[in-house]
Amino acid sequence: MADKTDTTSEPKPGDASRNTPPGPAHVSRRRLLGTAGAAGAAALVAGGAAGAAGAEAVREGPDPLSSVGSAAVPFHGPHQSGILQPAQAHAHLAAFDLMPTADRKAAAALMRRWSDATADMMDGRTPQGDELGVALDAGPSSLTITFGFGRTFFDRTGLAAKRPDALEPLPAFTADALDPKRSEGDLWVQIGADDTLVTFHALRMLQKLAAGTARMRWQMNGFNRTPGATEQPMTGRNLMGQIDGTNNPKQSDANFNTRIFVPDDRNGADGWMAGGSYAVVRRIRMLLDTWDNLSLDQQEKVIGRRKSDGAPLSGGQETTRADLNKVGSDGALAIAGDAHIRVASPATNRGAAMLRRAFNYHDGFRDDGAPDAGLLFVAWQADPLKGFTPVQRKLDRGDGLSRFLRHESSGLFAVPGGCERGEYVGQRLLEG
Amino acid sequence: MADKTDTTSEPKPGDASRNTPPGPAHVSRRRLLGTAGAAGAAALVAGGAAGAAGAEAVREGPDPLSSVGSAAVPFHGPHQSGILQPAQAHAHLAAFDLMPTADRKAAAALMRRWSDATADMMDGRTPQGDELGVALDAGPSSLTITFGFGRTFFDRTGLAAKRPDALEPLPAFTADALDPKRSEGDLWVQIGADDTLVTFHALRMLQKLAAGTARMRWQMNGFNRTPGATEQPMTGRNLMGQIDGTNNPKQSDANFNTRIFVPDDRNGADGWMAGGSYAVVRRIRMLLDTWDNLSLDQQEKVIGRRKSDGAPLSGGQETTRADLNKVGSDGALAIAGDAHIRVASPATNRGAAMLRRAFNYHDGFRDDGAPDAGLLFVAWQADPLKGFTPVQRKLDRGDGLSRFLRHESSGLFAVPGGCERGEYVGQRLLEG
Ligand code: HEM
Ligand code: HEM
Repeated sequence: MADKTDTTSEPKPGDASRNTPPGPAHVSRRRLLGTAGAAGAAALVAGGAAGAAGAEAVREGPDPLSSVGSAAVPFHGPHQSGILQPAQAHAHLAAFDLMPTADRKAAAALMRRWSDATADMMDGRTPQGDELGVALDAGPSSLTITFGFGRTFFDRTGLAAKRPDALEPLPAFTADALDPKRSEGDLWVQIGADDTLVTFHALRMLQKLAAGTARMRWQMNGFNRTPGATEQPMTGRNLMGQIDGTNNPKQSDANFNTRIFVPDDRNGADGWMAGGSYAVVRRIRMLLDTWDNLSLDQQEKVIGRRKSDGAPLSGGQETTRADLNKVGSDGALAIAGDAHIRVASPATNRGAAMLRRAFNYHDGFRDDGAPDAGLLFVAWQADPLKGFTPVQRKLDRGDGLSRFLRHESSGLFAVPGGCERGEYVGQRLLEG
Repeated sequence: MADKTDTTSEPKPGDASRNTPPGPAHVSRRRLLGTAGAAGAAALVAGGAAGAAGAEAVREGPDPLSSVGSAAVPFHGPHQSGILQPAQAHAHLAAFDLMPTADRKAAAALMRRWSDATADMMDGRTPQGDELGVALDAGPSSLTITFGFGRTFFDRTGLAAKRPDALEPLPAFTADALDPKRSEGDLWVQIGADDTLVTFHALRMLQKLAAGTARMRWQMNGFNRTPGATEQPMTGRNLMGQIDGTNNPKQSDANFNTRIFVPDDRNGADGWMAGGSYAVVRRIRMLLDTWDNLSLDQQEKVIGRRKSDGAPLSGGQETTRADLNKVGSDGALAIAGDAHIRVASPATNRGAAMLRRAFNYHDGFRDDGAPDAGLLFVAWQADPLKGFTPVQRKLDRGDGLSRFLRHESSGLFAVPGGCERGEYVGQRLLEG
């Protein structure tokens, strides 16, 4: 985190800081600059792998701690925010359904209202007419807000002809115990920030702006480690205690963009998805009581990595490439045949890969005393049929980890590309 | 927060840092020292008024951000932790009921196990036999764990003769809509820390250590602003958007100790409560949709303070003493007759006062689309009959705010004093 204060480059043209916001003074005075800067700074916080490329953060002023609040991610750009920025400390995932009376025009107006308010909030400004006050004083705290369209959105708005094939329903998996009331939805919203009041404020604001047009269908709270809780920035842990996120695709990988984002040259019905991505959202409960009864050794075998530092069982440290063929002195595979990282690896899935950007969740305890806790798993890919679906199909059959998991809800959403100044998210679909 | 790095005093004898913990290295290298130090540092984070007296923090090393994780509160001392330290960013409140088979001896053994693990975790050490791994890498992050005994605890352990009168059930209030399943309990635990994984780990650890002796009765998650989200440390906001905590009793007040802690010279059945305090725990849901429909002006009248900066409507700034008699040019009271700060003030309650140390909560949305959100209100006092009870009785009749609140659960717990090295919390009750 100290790295945040180390760089001294000057603001560049095109940086969000060019527009001095009328909001809290500290936001404009101490701003992290540009997409790469914000993503990089967040990478330093969350330790995620995705933001490593070209990270550069700039700040002024003597107080590094306040950079938690003042860090801002730009709203405008080729991709929506909340995909490339490493997962923040707090998140709300929510789905909304259009009301029976809401047509395409009403949906477009909602996306306009949501986009305008999002641009304000991500920049630390108070949206017009917002007297909630909940996030006053706090900076944007790396707020990102991401919008997606579910399969049902297209029928309700008369846009079925533009529905991408990629939104075909996911297949059923044997580990599924899905609750339809907490699954899918016409519209999906992902809110992330490093401050709980900033996320809550954004969620309430969006809900209010939806009044009369869309109604909340489901909503979930997620979290990751607080910035500064570890001495050095590092990959986060999940509630099983594992270091989670190590072997994610990196922005520096040659095929990163084509794996994660829909290409620009797309013709046909889903041309509006250029620069967009598909989000698979799964609420995956962990059977923690069962899990905790395993020995450390057994737990590590299930994943194929060491719990303490995330190193693969084939040797090395966290970032060492796992050697799936390595055989130990006992003649057994160092990384077991059903180890999660073997079964999920692109190497055993003909290259299928996705960007995992997850949040932990903990909603108290169930009647049997077991925690209602696990992962709000969000996977990003240009095509679910080349990302989540084949991998989950394989995990569903042969993953040692699946014994300790229950997939409780599922959503698949088309997340359009980012928008330019004056545009709103989804405009190319709704007015194209 | 920068203030954390400003002081340079040396470790003092009696500080927790004398025992170098075998845990993560950064914990011992960068430690906040002593009760006052930790409380003060936390005060700078949460902006609470309670920790202002004699605050002094010491740290080494060049990286102020990591002080979020490395800040440690001492376990041993005259009072339990989690009362004087300003409220952290995250909390779990939980109640446990003893199992039918558990007697006084089993309860004593549980308090011993809980105390030992707490001493370890608060110091950043991994408790013996703990392979959960969830909090690895993070420092203690200002972890505090507080234990209390409910009314029913005394019958179940054959200690009815030692039950303090102060544990007589609270009266019923008209605003009550209490859920008994989420109220009261034999044992109460309050866990607070600035990191979500640290709090979750502590909660799981305590639950595991209770196995066979006590079962979780209810559990709630709470939060306050993330350290560093505001440029300057300041009093936190609640989910109505108000600055909340301003006019709390201060440790520098002459009568602070006698108001909050049971005196040492107590004879009789509840002599074991010396140095202890009584916690009133109320889950108070906010009717936010109704509240948000008020104008800013109306909202400020209900409280008697300005929303933007918390200044009393009688003038000045946040810390200016409210003038309850001031009349405006329109001939009306500047602070309305039913304003929350008038009706709750010690000045209108014959001096009745308590230390409020609350957490926000947000557990998603109810079926009608209204947020299930509000305050996990925790009030501390030497005697509930001179603190919470008379004030709440008055609020219940005449408080403008109560229209926007529902008290959904209630608990009253005897929180014994802190323990010395070798002792466990509650030992003076259980072995006295
Ligand atoms: C609660 C559920 C899950 C847990 C606790 C979990 C945990 C982990 C852990 C600890 C790792 C190793 C570190 C890393 O590279 O991130 C990992 C890797 C991975 N997981 Fe999961 N995972 C879960 C569900 C899933 C699901 C549903 C998928 C996809 C369908 C998935 C796909 C992957 C992939 C692709 C990798 C990287 C494998 C490699 O190439 O090394 N995981 N997971
Ligand atoms: C969700 C419920 C509540 C909310 C949102 C709330 C909010 C506030 C706010 C904004 C203030 C002014 C700032 C401050 O001094 O902290 C305040 C003051 C206060 N509140 Fe509450 N409050 C709530 C419930 C209660 C309850 C249940 C009690 C006690 C029974 C209480 C007792 C007090 C007291 C004693 C003060 C200080 C009054 C003074 O001397 O100025 N509050 N509260």
